[in-house]
Amino acid sequence: MSQTTIEPSATGQSEKRTRIETGADYIDSLRDRELVLYYLGERITDPVEHPVIRPSINAIAATYDLAISNPELALVTSPFTQRLINRFLHIATSQDDLAQQNKMQRKLGQLTGTCFLQRCVGMDALNALLSVTYGIDAAHSTAYHDQLNEFIRLTVMPTMCLGVTDKDFAIVGALPVETSGIAYIYGSQSCDTRSLERGDLDSGNAHYSGQEDMVIFKDVFIPRERIFMHGEVEFASLLVECFTCYHRRSYVCKSGVGDVLIGAATIIANYNGVSKVSHIREKPVEMTHLNETIYSTGIASSHQSRPTQSGCYLNDDMIANVCKHHVTRTHLWNLSPRPGPCRRTHW
Amino acid sequence: MSQTTIEPSATGQSEKRTRIETGADYIDSLRDRELVLYYLGERITDPVEHPVIRPSINAIAATYDLAISNPELALVTSPFTQRLINRFLHIATSQDDLAQQNKMQRKLGQLTGTCFLQRCVGMDALNALLSVTYGIDAAHSTAYHDQLNEFIRLTVMPTMCLGVTDKDFAIVGALPVETSGIAYIYGSQSCDTRSLERGDLDSGNAHYSGQEDMVIFKDVFIPRERIFMHGEVEFASLLVECFTCYHRRSYVCKSGVGDVLIGAATIIANYNGVSKVSHIREKPVEMTHLNETIYSTGIASSHQSRPTQSGCYLNDDMIANVCKHHVTRTHLWNLSPRPGPCRRTHW
Amino acid sequence: MSQTTIEPSATGQSEKRTRIETGADYIDSLRDRELVLYYLGERITDPVEHPVIRPSINAIAATYDLAISNPELALVTSPFTQRLINRFLHIATSQDDLAQQNKMQRKLGQLTGTCFLQRCVGMDALNALLSVTYGIDAAHSTAYHDQLNEFIRLTVMPTMCLGVTDKDFAIVGALPVETSGIAYIYGSQSCDTRSLERGDLDSGNAHYSGQEDMVIFKDVFIPRERIFMHGEVEFASLLVECFTCYHRRSYVCKSGVGDVLIGAATIIANYNGVSKVSHIREKPVEMTHLNETIYSTGIASSHQSRPTQSGCYLNDDMIANVCKHHVTRTHLWNLSPRPGPCRRTHW
Amino acid sequence: MSQTTIEPSATGQSEKRTRIETGADYIDSLRDRELVLYYLGERITDPVEHPVIRPSINAIAATYDLAISNPELALVTSPFTQRLINRFLHIATSQDDLAQQNKMQRKLGQLTGTCFLQRCVGMDALNALLSVTYGIDAAHSTAYHDQLNEFIRLTVMPTMCLGVTDKDFAIVGALPVETSGIAYIYGSQSCDTRSLERGDLDSGNAHYSGQEDMVIFKDVFIPRERIFMHGEVEFASLLVECFTCYHRRSYVCKSGVGDVLIGAATIIANYNGVSKVSHIREKPVEMTHLNETIYSTGIASSHQSRPTQSGCYLNDDMIANVCKHHVTRTHLWNLSPRPGPCRRTHW
Repeated sequence: MSQTTIEPSATGQSEKRTRIETGADYIDSLRDRELVLYYLGERITDPVEHPVIRPSINAIAATYDLAISNPELALVTSPFTQRLINRFLHIATSQDDLAQQNKMQRKLGQLTGTCFLQRCVGMDALNALLSVTYGIDAAHSTAYHDQLNEFIRLTVMPTMCLGVTDKDFAIVGALPVETSGIAYIYGSQSCDTRSLERGDLDSGNAHYSGQEDMVIFKDVFIPRERIFMHGEVEFASLLVECFTCYHRRSYVCKSGVGDVLIGAATIIANYNGVSKVSHIREKPVEMTHLNETIYSTGIASSHQSRPTQSGCYLNDDMIANVCKHHVTRTHLWNLSPRPGPCRRTHW
Repeated sequence: MSQTTIEPSATGQSEKRTRIETGADYIDSLRDRELVLYYLGERITDPVEHPVIRPSINAIAATYDLAISNPELALVTSPFTQRLINRFLHIATSQDDLAQQNKMQRKLGQLTGTCFLQRCVGMDALNALLSVTYGIDAAHSTAYHDQLNEFIRLTVMPTMCLGVTDKDFAIVGALPVETSGIAYIYGSQSCDTRSLERGDLDSGNAHYSGQEDMVIFKDVFIPRERIFMHGEVEFASLLVECFTCYHRRSYVCKSGVGDVLIGAATIIANYNGVSKVSHIREKPVEMTHLNETIYSTGIASSHQSRPTQSGCYLNDDMIANVCKHHVTRTHLWNLSPRPGPCRRTHW
Repeated sequence: MSQTTIEPSATGQSEKRTRIETGADYIDSLRDRELVLYYLGERITDPVEHPVIRPSINAIAATYDLAISNPELALVTSPFTQRLINRFLHIATSQDDLAQQNKMQRKLGQLTGTCFLQRCVGMDALNALLSVTYGIDAAHSTAYHDQLNEFIRLTVMPTMCLGVTDKDFAIVGALPVETSGIAYIYGSQSCDTRSLERGDLDSGNAHYSGQEDMVIFKDVFIPRERIFMHGEVEFASLLVECFTCYHRRSYVCKSGVGDVLIGAATIIANYNGVSKVSHIREKPVEMTHLNETIYSTGIASSHQSRPTQSGCYLNDDMIANVCKHHVTRTHLWNLSPRPGPCRRTHW
Repeated sequence: MSQTTIEPSATGQSEKRTRIETGADYIDSLRDRELVLYYLGERITDPVEHPVIRPSINAIAATYDLAISNPELALVTSPFTQRLINRFLHIATSQDDLAQQNKMQRKLGQLTGTCFLQRCVGMDALNALLSVTYGIDAAHSTAYHDQLNEFIRLTVMPTMCLGVTDKDFAIVGALPVETSGIAYIYGSQSCDTRSLERGDLDSGNAHYSGQEDMVIFKDVFIPRERIFMHGEVEFASLLVECFTCYHRRSYVCKSGVGDVLIGAATIIANYNGVSKVSHIREKPVEMTHLNETIYSTGIASSHQSRPTQSGCYLNDDMIANVCKHHVTRTHLWNLSPRPGPCRRTHW
């Protein structure tokens, strides 16, 4: 019923935790958290070392390492603190900010060949919340906008248009991921258990993967100063639309994954000695055509962005939806995070 | 290097074995065969009860049960013995014979929702061999054609165009599946290990599935009277072309699987309350359009068949290839034998 | 409001007219008919010699000449008169009859490279009327079926589902094309006036073309014995459905036109020295794929035909609609009867 | 063999001519030019009043009127003269300049519903020549770049990769359109003669259209100072590539034409009372998806532009080609400048 964005990189999550700068820092920060986490019906006590889960942790770690290897792409000076911060935590205040997000997303798609969903969702949710809390405050004299500016942790927010009777679900709040009462069920993905089998021929993209959890809340307390929506149902669908507007353009990351797949397809054709066969050669061309289209619609949507009243820039929603539509067409490539083997011979 | 068709239903495979009439008979016939069979690196001693393998056995069993439930579709009087035989073992001697194969294939696709590949391959290979051995005998004064008419078991045959230097591989022969020296490696399929996990929510088409094996021959003896090609390399590609001509039209079975998928998609839409939404309603229409096209091209290829010199009818090769091409487009539906779950939420 | 099928080849249209056997006979039969015919706002007194109209007359003439050059394809023994008649006038009484119609249609498409619409419409309307009048007679004790069996000339029939208030339009009748009160407005087609210009570079398919007329009835008398529906509105939509069922499978003629276009495209590629370029070579392959699909769905629909109560065979309606749908996709080839030139250079 | 860009709006074309500011000025400037112009084999003495030619003149006139109605879109301060000039004559010196070209092109597509090809070609050729002449001068110590900066009139340039033996054709030069020895043959377009017929129902986009001429040079003199390439064959293909890079992104104009077509299609659906039918409603959605994709790829290509050594910005060539490819897919809409009627009824 609620969409949850996990943004564990925020500072100040716990007094005990040290500053996260590298991917290795991030991975270390996940140890000993005592999360209530389940996978395939079993409690997972050490997710960091779990062979199915670790690749998705590696993908997030890559977003930190990028800030070190490509600071011009992944670091930006915050207009609020004047300090260099990771672009995933940055509020877009120009067309160029949004276009730069796209370039960073493509680069990370190239580096990981998978989805690093949690960080894009966090970035897009942060920007969406900033706009929408500004609107709520204006309408209801609340102070959500200022509260939001203070920090972000795990954020809970509605994911659909709510009616008046859904008032209880019109809640947005932030809280530490290990808060008492939260349980995580790690979602299974197609062929994910290949990592548990003997041998590594079938493990696909062994080092990186995406992850999604179902998060269950049972008597969880969020202090009032970390609440950013509380019953203002008329803003719920606006928040979803604002978030999806950002996020459907964020699918530019898939053009980075596409770069990997196109390269892999080309190498496979080479290995099989058929790279000059016309109907083979045409495939990476067609893939590239779609891949650059995804990238272009993302860039164009960012380029056509306009400032909202909050100052935060919002990209073009029509083109963002066109971008997302093109991404759905990559399923023609059988684009999945860790595709299983297909040994079937068709005559 | 060689394509192997396993046709365990032939009579006379072993003096000890009793006549197979029902699906249950067939399943029983597979017990205690002491095949050398591996799956995921482990020796499987009782494939009949193995949770991953059993569904593919069930699919073959359905081909026997159909002969009982729909005898007008699946039984036919053999022109050689004047006895009623399963249509999968029948030599096509008319346009109607070939069209009836298509109708039986669609029905079985509907009943199992999967591939019962081994039996179609056996049927098509049998017909192809009959034509080609006739040709070899005419060219080389061999007696392969008569030998072939005697019986079929596991059949080994070349799967590609061979050159003069490939003479040693230009071999076609039949032998019992449990012949000493043969080892089978059961191919893994996407998400096949879901059947090994707890719960049944993710097991997909739990009762039926396809299977494919890699078959390894090590010092295997085939007596001369069960050899149907031996070094006549110039007939190897002809055999492949003849087989694929039959087989690419046999993909009509996928229209039966399509019927299941279209029904499932429609029911899922109903359950979600969106069956009248225009862009949802359009999907089963589009699927049906492709599905009936597959069926039609198969039927038309059979209808356009012509007798070969052996008397066996061969369907239209151009249209058979068009049929196969349309089948490849069903991957747009994510048509796989036992599709894994996809819980990914896309915004 | 009404669909009109002109079937001028029927015997007995006028005592004065002689039997039509050849295409030349047919063309001669059209002279001096004193039809009230308009084109581009002007009265046309001699349509036979009009440069825009003549190619469409030539296309019909080809249907007579085919009966002489390919009698096994275009002639058939009438089950009613036991005499050889043109297949376009034949009532289908078997699956093979319907499949043979498709083969004749493809051949004529190849020979003319255009639509000879009037004759297919006549053939399909004749078969549809036979079934439906049988039904009306059974329901209303009329004698339409017997009356229909006597002869066909120009036939008027409803083209849509009619309601009770549309009773006056639920009329089917036959009458000579030159009956007093009928006026024809010759429809213009894309680029049709190229034939009137100097030079012949742009005249496209100069010898053959299709035609369509709007036919206006003003106080036209049809004797009762030539009426086959008169107010039975509940049969109007049935007639349309029955006719379209036949006719959407009759679009197989387009695969004959497709053969011409594919050949032309290939020759043009040869002339330009690009026939081996991969993205050029792929085009006729893709065209052929669609073309054989059209043919196959037509054949399969005919093959799946079933006898109606009237004895007339009716083909599979689902597959007939699939056939028509595939035909609509030929517009990707810019398939038009007489395509105009396109000199536009695109960089 | 040569591509000719007619850019009649340049200042200084003739001492006699007055400054062109409005569309009406432009139309007047075309009178009494005594061009040697042919259409359908006949000499045209007054093209301005010719019913087939005038609509294409109106389309160019619209490019002048836009500078008055939307100066922020169509006027720009020249970095060379510091005066306001029409954007079609402007050299792009930033990413934004190129993106603004796209926005102007879409607007003009919306206003005219057709191609105003000559002005885009002029704009793109001007920018391409500026880059390439800079390169030639650097390589050969010529002074083409400075000469080019002086003025543009009708420009002749190569349109393909040239070899050493094609040296005589490696020529770029500018000259007044009425120079002695030049003859123009006005190209015919599909259904263009509808404008000559009685009535206006079939005249399509009556007020605007595109045009293309074949231009024949017979003993034409171009003074040396108006020559910008003379035998430097190695730069010919570079010029073509540079021009097509600009121009394939200029096809963004088609998204403006698309806006008109989508609107027209929607209105037609309304008039026919079928605008809520699902398979009708889906068409403008699909058209919009393609239309916004065209726009987006154009904008993204402009956004990704980089400065050349000449200072002139060159857009991303990969994305420009993707843009053009998407434009070719609009032929699915039967997008033609003045589509003829299609009265054919398909059952």
